[in-house]
Amino acid sequence: MTLVVYDISNDRTRAKIADICLDYGLERIQYSAFAGDLTRTHAEELMLKARKKLGKQPGTIWLVPVCEKDWQNRLVTEQKEKP
Amino acid sequence: MTLVVYDISNDRTRAKIADICLDYGLERIQYSAFAGDLTRTHAEELMLKARKKLGKQPGTIWLVPVCEKDWQNRLVTEQKEKP
Repeated sequence: MTLVVYDISNDRTRAKIADICLDYGLERIQYSAFAGDLTRTHAEELMLKARKKLGKQPGTIWLVPVCEKDWQNRLVTEQKEKP
Repeated sequence: MTLVVYDISNDRTRAKIADICLDYGLERIQYSAFAGDLTRTHAEELMLKARKKLGKQPGTIWLVPVCEKDWQNRLVTEQKEKP
């Protein structure tokens, strides 16, 4: 699995980086965090595209590969907004 | 390494969960993301405390262990806000 987490203040840029993640088949796990299976080549490609989109704007993007064993050991809490 | 990433709308709760991460010696890598060395016991403890703090409020908290090899292979872009 690959985890992509970012912190970008510009709404439009943030939305475009979300689109790039979705284009690569990642699943949205949080508002600014995605996860999914990516080859190293695709991971590097995604990062290149995201960096290009960010340009000179301030922001932080992390892409972290996570092996199957570590992925199984993740701890998750999810509570939806009440309707 | 352990990565903690969260998405919490309540400002006060979000700040308190950041405090818990700092208490456990994690480093802030993004506004709502922390990383650092944690034993499994401490990781579970941190998660318990964070869940307790979140209570019944909506929010998502992910804690993902990342082995040394994967950590070395992370890709990071960081651009600071211009002064």
